[in-house]
Amino acid sequence: MKTQRIDRVLDRIDGGFPASMERLFELLRFPSIGTDPAHAADCRAAAEWLKGTLARMGFAASVEQTTGRPLVLARYEPPESVVKGLRHVPHVLFYGHYDVQPADPHDLWTTPAFSPHVRPGKDGRDCIYARGASDDKGQVMTFVEASRAWLEIAGSLPFRLTMLIEGDEEGDAGPLDDFLVRNKSRLKGDVALVCDTGLWDPKTPMIVSSLRGCICEDVTITGPRIDLHSGYFGGPAINPIKVLSRILDGMHDRNGRVTIPGFYDGVKAPNAATRKAWKKVPFEEKAFLANAGLKTSVGEKDYSVLEQVWARPTAEVNGIWGGYMGAGSKTVLPAQASAKLSFRLVQGQDPRKVRKAFQAYVRSKLPKDCKVTFETYGGDSAGVAIAQDSHWISKARKALVDEWGVAPVVAGEGGSIPVVESFARHLKVDSVLIGFANADDAIHSPDEKYDVESYRKGIRSWARMIEEIVLETEKP
Amino acid sequence: MKTQRIDRVLDRIDGGFPASMERLFELLRFPSIGTDPAHAADCRAAAEWLKGTLARMGFAASVEQTTGRPLVLARYEPPESVVKGLRHVPHVLFYGHYDVQPADPHDLWTTPAFSPHVRPGKDGRDCIYARGASDDKGQVMTFVEASRAWLEIAGSLPFRLTMLIEGDEEGDAGPLDDFLVRNKSRLKGDVALVCDTGLWDPKTPMIVSSLRGCICEDVTITGPRIDLHSGYFGGPAINPIKVLSRILDGMHDRNGRVTIPGFYDGVKAPNAATRKAWKKVPFEEKAFLANAGLKTSVGEKDYSVLEQVWARPTAEVNGIWGGYMGAGSKTVLPAQASAKLSFRLVQGQDPRKVRKAFQAYVRSKLPKDCKVTFETYGGDSAGVAIAQDSHWISKARKALVDEWGVAPVVAGEGGSIPVVESFARHLKVDSVLIGFANADDAIHSPDEKYDVESYRKGIRSWARMIEEIVLETEKP
Repeated sequence: MKTQRIDRVLDRIDGGFPASMERLFELLRFPSIGTDPAHAADCRAAAEWLKGTLARMGFAASVEQTTGRPLVLARYEPPESVVKGLRHVPHVLFYGHYDVQPADPHDLWTTPAFSPHVRPGKDGRDCIYARGASDDKGQVMTFVEASRAWLEIAGSLPFRLTMLIEGDEEGDAGPLDDFLVRNKSRLKGDVALVCDTGLWDPKTPMIVSSLRGCICEDVTITGPRIDLHSGYFGGPAINPIKVLSRILDGMHDRNGRVTIPGFYDGVKAPNAATRKAWKKVPFEEKAFLANAGLKTSVGEKDYSVLEQVWARPTAEVNGIWGGYMGAGSKTVLPAQASAKLSFRLVQGQDPRKVRKAFQAYVRSKLPKDCKVTFETYGGDSAGVAIAQDSHWISKARKALVDEWGVAPVVAGEGGSIPVVESFARHLKVDSVLIGFANADDAIHSPDEKYDVESYRKGIRSWARMIEEIVLETEKP
Repeated sequence: MKTQRIDRVLDRIDGGFPASMERLFELLRFPSIGTDPAHAADCRAAAEWLKGTLARMGFAASVEQTTGRPLVLARYEPPESVVKGLRHVPHVLFYGHYDVQPADPHDLWTTPAFSPHVRPGKDGRDCIYARGASDDKGQVMTFVEASRAWLEIAGSLPFRLTMLIEGDEEGDAGPLDDFLVRNKSRLKGDVALVCDTGLWDPKTPMIVSSLRGCICEDVTITGPRIDLHSGYFGGPAINPIKVLSRILDGMHDRNGRVTIPGFYDGVKAPNAATRKAWKKVPFEEKAFLANAGLKTSVGEKDYSVLEQVWARPTAEVNGIWGGYMGAGSKTVLPAQASAKLSFRLVQGQDPRKVRKAFQAYVRSKLPKDCKVTFETYGGDSAGVAIAQDSHWISKARKALVDEWGVAPVVAGEGGSIPVVESFARHLKVDSVLIGFANADDAIHSPDEKYDVESYRKGIRSWARMIEEIVLETEKP
């Protein structure tokens, strides 16, 4: 009996795994800290290494200038002979990032952040320790190595494949967004595979079904022209801290609902397929809250904790400051008080409209003698829902079941991955978010790690996804 | 016609004024910054200078150790021959302080802070520029020089006089309070003359009729065990900034009244004489508020601005902080938020009960999953009212009318002078608060000054007050 093509690819992956490890180690050795100008050359070196690696695999690879760090663009064009007669030749995008978080404090690392080492983790599983091992170099390399094994076994792929590996993910979303706008035509594809998320647990894969967007806004209330002596003016003089407190307190009602007029405009509930999938999620509210040191949810009534995080928008205060903050007493009535807010958004909300609604709300609550100023920064990102009944999600589910032996958990994500919304907005392409990180990978922290099994089964998972795409082109 | 005794004293004051200026300059040259340990020796030197000066005037003077900076105690005992046959020999206390605020930033001073200079001020009046010129060395010396002139002209005084000049006024009220408790018997007097306040305007003297007390308290609300990612936990997780905002917002009702249960317990309205005197005060609400950049009072309804500041207690937020306060965004839900509060108290309120009432109020508003901690510091001081129909106030009024040609304004004081409450509590003695500072003296700021006329007419005013006391002893 002839060995199946996918089995030969998987054999090649397992047989070539030491070399795959070595290549990942090479990439991990670049201290490519995107947000630190002192590491600009390291970022470029990491990008050049990726370009060379992909070029040797047969990709037309380039390092592209952006307004931020350089970006690696690598395009695979299937040979004419292979695609001749195929019904449909899809264009698949792959997204990841080579930039990493700063590694300090360095003295909390067991082995140096940019000298990758393998050793057993807490529960005995072998892990790769290095900054970026999990976020996101290890994940990027799962796809690169899966593509390599496929090309080695099959000689070619019957679809167009564009890898886009950026260097600004940990910093500003602007440069990539600009790049996408400027390169719409060559990036328009059928689906984007994004590898920057996690497993549900070490034995269960996960497909992300929604992401919340995010906007940030600082607000400053000014009252008296200068800080006042609370003895001379205490009583009649308005206090901006009190004004700000009233505004922040009034932003939610007693049911946890945001009171800003227009805030919920356009909010779409997840569709039936997603709701059905979420019902199966083995989510423990108690354990989730206990992890934060809490027992009770203060989110919107009539929504489960899972829905509050995955499907409902929030208005949050991230910081507050004003008046005297030092030791002892200084009995002033301050001239100003400020707060830093962020809003997590879900599909259907327009970030610009939410920002305007918040500003209008604050102005409507502003008493006499007070002024307000706003500071807007960061890239706005909208919430995104990924329909779970789509063609590409079905393929991803099949690939993951084949590799892991269990159905992937379909999970919302309360955080934001702005690129997914950029792909949807600028390229009109849906994303499939699959990743192999574990909850204990310590991304952004000392001793960041990636399980060796995450890497190996990640490569195998993508190989199976490629198989699904290939089968698609082979349909009669 | 025989020249009146008081006229001879006043002549002596004017004739000896250059020497009085020279002595004040000597005192001003000590950089006696009480709160800075590096200036401990300068404080002692200033105290020793005062001790020597008063000893040469015939006082039994000593520099007394306290738990803080040394304190000058100088006692004048009238000769037996003088008091023989007098109906009543009062014991008069005088209070002032030789310690000064730090002088930095030094480069904002026109002439060095501890090198006194005379030059015209903004409106052409000659002024003495130095740190402490107005607060409080110049004021201390008005009384010292008045006593000196009296002793020189009359040879003796027919009453006991104890000057108490401390070195901790700008710092901690504790050391003086301790000293008063430990020295009750030798300090028990009939009246305390306190010279640490101001004129109503450069041509109108002022008698202070009430002081607000003050207590300080920090409050910290803790919710989650650590700062949380607002994407992963935003929605269900409680936010201590929001909890604190609700507590602070709830502390006043829409009429500006403090809602803390028990807060107003014991509050006494000013007596009829004080209320009558306040009606005559040429107080301009609009100008007062405009000076703070405001147009509208937010104090308690049904009270004038003047009553809000002079006769009503307050609950004020002096500072607030929590979460991320840096540039840009950090989308955390903070574990903690803190505020710094102070409460201005009026006569009848018990500072300890108000503190407990505030703590109970916060606890009553604390939601599930939150903890609160309080930090208490600073010396509590109660509010004090000084009856305007008293014997000693009548004498002070007469002395001031005689010197200034206009009736003194009877004014409340929204700030706190803890020593007045200490005198009342420990020594059971009422204070008469008279001072000669002007509103533009820049106390605590660069280019602090004291008008030369404040100094000269201050000395003359006290000489007239001494005349009133002497006349008291001479009554049949």
